[in-house]
Amino acid sequence: MSQPNPTPAAAGSSAGDPVQPLVGIVMGSDSDWPTMEAAALALAEFDVPVEVDIVSAHRMPTEMIEYGRSAADRGLRVIIAGAGGAAHLPGMLAAVTPLPVIGVPVPLRHLDGMDSLLSIVQMPAGVPVATVSIGGARNAGLLALRILAAGGDSLAARLRPAMEAFQADLADVARAKGA
Amino acid sequence: MSQPNPTPAAAGSSAGDPVQPLVGIVMGSDSDWPTMEAAALALAEFDVPVEVDIVSAHRMPTEMIEYGRSAADRGLRVIIAGAGGAAHLPGMLAAVTPLPVIGVPVPLRHLDGMDSLLSIVQMPAGVPVATVSIGGARNAGLLALRILAAGGDSLAARLRPAMEAFQADLADVARAKGA
Amino acid sequence: MSQPNPTPAAAGSSAGDPVQPLVGIVMGSDSDWPTMEAAALALAEFDVPVEVDIVSAHRMPTEMIEYGRSAADRGLRVIIAGAGGAAHLPGMLAAVTPLPVIGVPVPLRHLDGMDSLLSIVQMPAGVPVATVSIGGARNAGLLALRILAAGGDSLAARLRPAMEAFQADLADVARAKGA
Amino acid sequence: MSQPNPTPAAAGSSAGDPVQPLVGIVMGSDSDWPTMEAAALALAEFDVPVEVDIVSAHRMPTEMIEYGRSAADRGLRVIIAGAGGAAHLPGMLAAVTPLPVIGVPVPLRHLDGMDSLLSIVQMPAGVPVATVSIGGARNAGLLALRILAAGGDSLAARLRPAMEAFQADLADVARAKGA
Amino acid sequence: MSQPNPTPAAAGSSAGDPVQPLVGIVMGSDSDWPTMEAAALALAEFDVPVEVDIVSAHRMPTEMIEYGRSAADRGLRVIIAGAGGAAHLPGMLAAVTPLPVIGVPVPLRHLDGMDSLLSIVQMPAGVPVATVSIGGARNAGLLALRILAAGGDSLAARLRPAMEAFQADLADVARAKGA
Amino acid sequence: MSQPNPTPAAAGSSAGDPVQPLVGIVMGSDSDWPTMEAAALALAEFDVPVEVDIVSAHRMPTEMIEYGRSAADRGLRVIIAGAGGAAHLPGMLAAVTPLPVIGVPVPLRHLDGMDSLLSIVQMPAGVPVATVSIGGARNAGLLALRILAAGGDSLAARLRPAMEAFQADLADVARAKGA
Amino acid sequence: MSQPNPTPAAAGSSAGDPVQPLVGIVMGSDSDWPTMEAAALALAEFDVPVEVDIVSAHRMPTEMIEYGRSAADRGLRVIIAGAGGAAHLPGMLAAVTPLPVIGVPVPLRHLDGMDSLLSIVQMPAGVPVATVSIGGARNAGLLALRILAAGGDSLAARLRPAMEAFQADLADVARAKGA
Amino acid sequence: MSQPNPTPAAAGSSAGDPVQPLVGIVMGSDSDWPTMEAAALALAEFDVPVEVDIVSAHRMPTEMIEYGRSAADRGLRVIIAGAGGAAHLPGMLAAVTPLPVIGVPVPLRHLDGMDSLLSIVQMPAGVPVATVSIGGARNAGLLALRILAAGGDSLAARLRPAMEAFQADLADVARAKGA
Repeated sequence: MSQPNPTPAAAGSSAGDPVQPLVGIVMGSDSDWPTMEAAALALAEFDVPVEVDIVSAHRMPTEMIEYGRSAADRGLRVIIAGAGGAAHLPGMLAAVTPLPVIGVPVPLRHLDGMDSLLSIVQMPAGVPVATVSIGGARNAGLLALRILAAGGDSLAARLRPAMEAFQADLADVARAKGA
Repeated sequence: MSQPNPTPAAAGSSAGDPVQPLVGIVMGSDSDWPTMEAAALALAEFDVPVEVDIVSAHRMPTEMIEYGRSAADRGLRVIIAGAGGAAHLPGMLAAVTPLPVIGVPVPLRHLDGMDSLLSIVQMPAGVPVATVSIGGARNAGLLALRILAAGGDSLAARLRPAMEAFQADLADVARAKGA
Repeated sequence: MSQPNPTPAAAGSSAGDPVQPLVGIVMGSDSDWPTMEAAALALAEFDVPVEVDIVSAHRMPTEMIEYGRSAADRGLRVIIAGAGGAAHLPGMLAAVTPLPVIGVPVPLRHLDGMDSLLSIVQMPAGVPVATVSIGGARNAGLLALRILAAGGDSLAARLRPAMEAFQADLADVARAKGA
Repeated sequence: MSQPNPTPAAAGSSAGDPVQPLVGIVMGSDSDWPTMEAAALALAEFDVPVEVDIVSAHRMPTEMIEYGRSAADRGLRVIIAGAGGAAHLPGMLAAVTPLPVIGVPVPLRHLDGMDSLLSIVQMPAGVPVATVSIGGARNAGLLALRILAAGGDSLAARLRPAMEAFQADLADVARAKGA
Repeated sequence: MSQPNPTPAAAGSSAGDPVQPLVGIVMGSDSDWPTMEAAALALAEFDVPVEVDIVSAHRMPTEMIEYGRSAADRGLRVIIAGAGGAAHLPGMLAAVTPLPVIGVPVPLRHLDGMDSLLSIVQMPAGVPVATVSIGGARNAGLLALRILAAGGDSLAARLRPAMEAFQADLADVARAKGA
Repeated sequence: MSQPNPTPAAAGSSAGDPVQPLVGIVMGSDSDWPTMEAAALALAEFDVPVEVDIVSAHRMPTEMIEYGRSAADRGLRVIIAGAGGAAHLPGMLAAVTPLPVIGVPVPLRHLDGMDSLLSIVQMPAGVPVATVSIGGARNAGLLALRILAAGGDSLAARLRPAMEAFQADLADVARAKGA
Repeated sequence: MSQPNPTPAAAGSSAGDPVQPLVGIVMGSDSDWPTMEAAALALAEFDVPVEVDIVSAHRMPTEMIEYGRSAADRGLRVIIAGAGGAAHLPGMLAAVTPLPVIGVPVPLRHLDGMDSLLSIVQMPAGVPVATVSIGGARNAGLLALRILAAGGDSLAARLRPAMEAFQADLADVARAKGA
Repeated sequence: MSQPNPTPAAAGSSAGDPVQPLVGIVMGSDSDWPTMEAAALALAEFDVPVEVDIVSAHRMPTEMIEYGRSAADRGLRVIIAGAGGAAHLPGMLAAVTPLPVIGVPVPLRHLDGMDSLLSIVQMPAGVPVATVSIGGARNAGLLALRILAAGGDSLAARLRPAMEAFQADLADVARAKGA
């Protein structure tokens, strides 16, 4: 699939009925979806409902700002934003939401993602973006899970052991390869 | 002076009475002013009225967008925007104005302006920023002059020979040093 | 087509009769044309007549200088110059014309265009080049349009709303992808 | 003060009585403290109790792993880790805790923090580190606040409006400079 | 073979019976094996028994530390560790063993191994890693041989002339190409 | 002395009477002189007459081209050109002279000379520049000497042994430091 | 042909009878030949006899030093040396010959030739290498020609107009493309 | 002291009587000594006798090669070589000795040691250099100790527990800072 599926049910929830998305996954262009899909998949493994959308800082600035401003009130608790080149989406969203924003540097045709990385991570004091590796959308999803699992509520109570099981599993798989 | 003077009369016009600013010079923080002042000075040398303002993409996103959206209607013809690090101001302004936007990469404490340069110049197709050198605010002012001088109106008629005289002068000064 | 078409009618004008080119698109080698063609196409979308030519700073220095010196008098209002590696064409043209010069860093076989970018953008004070992204010829064309649209004449009056419509269109297309 | 104060009361809590630290701030060496102190100060502004400690991945690997393993059970909800050069502390902690780990690239004598940044941000799939800018410890503190404010509990209920007020304040201060 | 063979007999010893491995070759993931295999092959050319294993710093931190701690007592005399991206394995092993640790920067999908190189080579004072070139696993094997050949024991007495013969052979092969 | 002395007698000849300069040392700005002076001094050590001049590619393009075109006929046999940033002088001179042109990347305020180096060394096929190290003007002078000493004429007959003596001297001085 | 032909007659001379090679083209490995061949071809275009050889600084250090030491006495007037990675051949040859040495940075599998470039160009004061662009072997040949043409002897008298004709030709070809 | 002391007794041995140096510490210039001294000091802490010398690859190539060729026979067991810029000394020594060679990238005036690092670490297959961090001479000394301690002889028997005590001490000091 070469285009993000904007319906949270399909992309991030295991149930067919409408659920409250907790994580918003946005990107500047549908060409970023092959990179960003891994974030949705990671969250789906943990049954965390997500919404996926195209929100371009440069082509739809008003919607982008509106997306960020309304995110917390719409029930989102984390935003994952992917962008490439002069990648402004994560930082601009961080400027208009109190939620934690995770930035994924998407590598474009030139410079191997170094421009994307610096454009996302080098934010000025006051407006942090939680940056993951170049192309690291799966880790962006897992970081969102850690954030949700760090809370004091029932969701965190469900996710914490799941995250610990996931980490144990990582070790088992790695161990099996060396065995 | 460590803070930009927001009144166009003082910064960019030779006359004391209110004049229509033609170039807007904006920056994300007053700490950018020591770098950006050279843009205002270059335009003042040609008696082009400017307005100077602090407009932070990350701390005042609404005003920033409003600044860009209204710029053409307020009579501005070029915007010069300086920013450092994950420098989003020039690109975001370019997204909300049809005017030409000139970006000045301001070098911050680390990476010598390389992050600023890439964050400004590597814009996606559709939204160009005219980028000058790291710390090159004087050239940003001179580029704005060239843009104004390229038109078909009376301002251009005045500025074109002034720009040619300026270029002849550059040569004379260089020549004198070698003489 | 692997070679630039030097006739403005074909490359940048919608009409068959001779028109005054307003933008000169030049490059150091015909191997740059696959990159630079996008500038001509962008201007053609707005019915702005262009001329396209090979003008090498290193192999035809006299013609290059003559091209720049005569550009304004021949009626050009903006020059777009693409070059790669030790890319001297944009800066040398800027040295001999009062017109705004837009530089396109063309990526060559090694270094992914970083050498081209630095050779174009890091111009000394006095001689600005409006640099766009590595391989960003389409944005060079759009920047030329913004410059033409910023004037006070009838061309600008035609282009300004066209540029605003273009920007609205960018948003619509982006929105449609996310819908 | 050139050495981190390991008592959470002094560094991160406004009250004198023992409180449960919610954020652990660790660094590989006391020479990182001038950089990392800003994280503690940001959290102190919001009355979030922190603990500060020296935990070197390379010199105290056992304690480092023990620190990470026990962090969640000791009541920490976020870890901020600063390190420079071949900066392994944030990633190694992320490997042994399910908590979100924020990495601060500390610039050392050479390479301006680029080595620190890449060593922290380029984590393999499965083990994310939320990386902030080079030397961006204040943003690490603010990111921890956003994470705590994103939860569903009473702490989040207190922090969310405080974070929104903080953001409004950022805008006011920026605005005042331009006025 | 796309997966490391963990039995030292097959990978590094010419005899079928159990032998004491002298060099441990470890890597964070079996995807590193195509790069790392050359280290095993180089040591096999000299009949130096090796053990090959997957030991991930980030996914199996406890085993990784245990591997390093026990290495000298298990009879290993050199450790070769390959890793990519935020490559922590060589440095973490060096932190828990008194043995010389040779680090091989494995190039991953982005940044061409520069992140791997800096993450391995820029170790803090006190904990050295002997770093070889990006993807330079064969040289890692040859460096281990030089280390073993530098001792005062019978193994060194055997390896020293073998290494000298190897160097003479390098010259002969190079000479033959030019002949 | 902060300005280049344009009289060859003073800068590069040991005799007071007019001599034919053999090496032209040019730079874009007198601010390059503190770097470039070392080239003149190296040639003076060997009694090779030089001329020193300011010839800016960007501010005096016509003179620059004229300088290059006339250089061989005026008796120059090597040109040394220093420039910084978007350093176009060496390459442009190489385009208009058949003489060997030596380029010296002058480090400017940002990027530590990396932009200067790439702008000089990455010349397209057909127009070579003999590039030396960043700030390496002394080596530029010594390279000019090697070029002059490689000829078949009497000058070469004088310079060859002088260069060999110079090399022997380098070794003696180095040896003395270790003794 | 994937291997350098060591016989100067075939590689660089148009005549079948033995001629005195004037330029030595050497490289560290026959895998450099596809890059370096262009140097031989450029010199062959001008009927300058060359010798081509494999001379590895790292695998045949004695021969390499001997090659450099004897080069001038054997009648060579310029050395062209290509090498990649930690490229020591050009600099080491320059250390043992008074001849001008031209270095060609050969790009290897990683880092795109940046390591080769820095290893060649950043020579210490006293021992210059005339460095050309990454992979720029053709320019190395043309630079050797300029050096030979700069002399005062009959060879120079033959080569100078040939080089000027070559430059005129470059312009004609470029012009034809734009026509 | 701005010059290396070439007598092993003073620099690396605790006893006044002549002892067999086991580690040779060499550098290209006495200006490298302030960086390289830390290697000698680290070895002195463990009572390992060293010899210190100036051996320039570029200015004393014959002695350099002789130094490397004779090193093993003179009883050295490890060579530590520091160099900056186009740093050829470590690799050239590795080419002429079967001993392990440790390379220390010395940062020079420009590029912050990145050129030194790449020139040392990116060695071709067959000739490894054990590279430590930029300016990391202390780690070079400690790596030499690990190599000596990895042997099967009495020296190793003495050094192994000393190295383990050193590592325990590193932890104690780090712990004390956090206490």
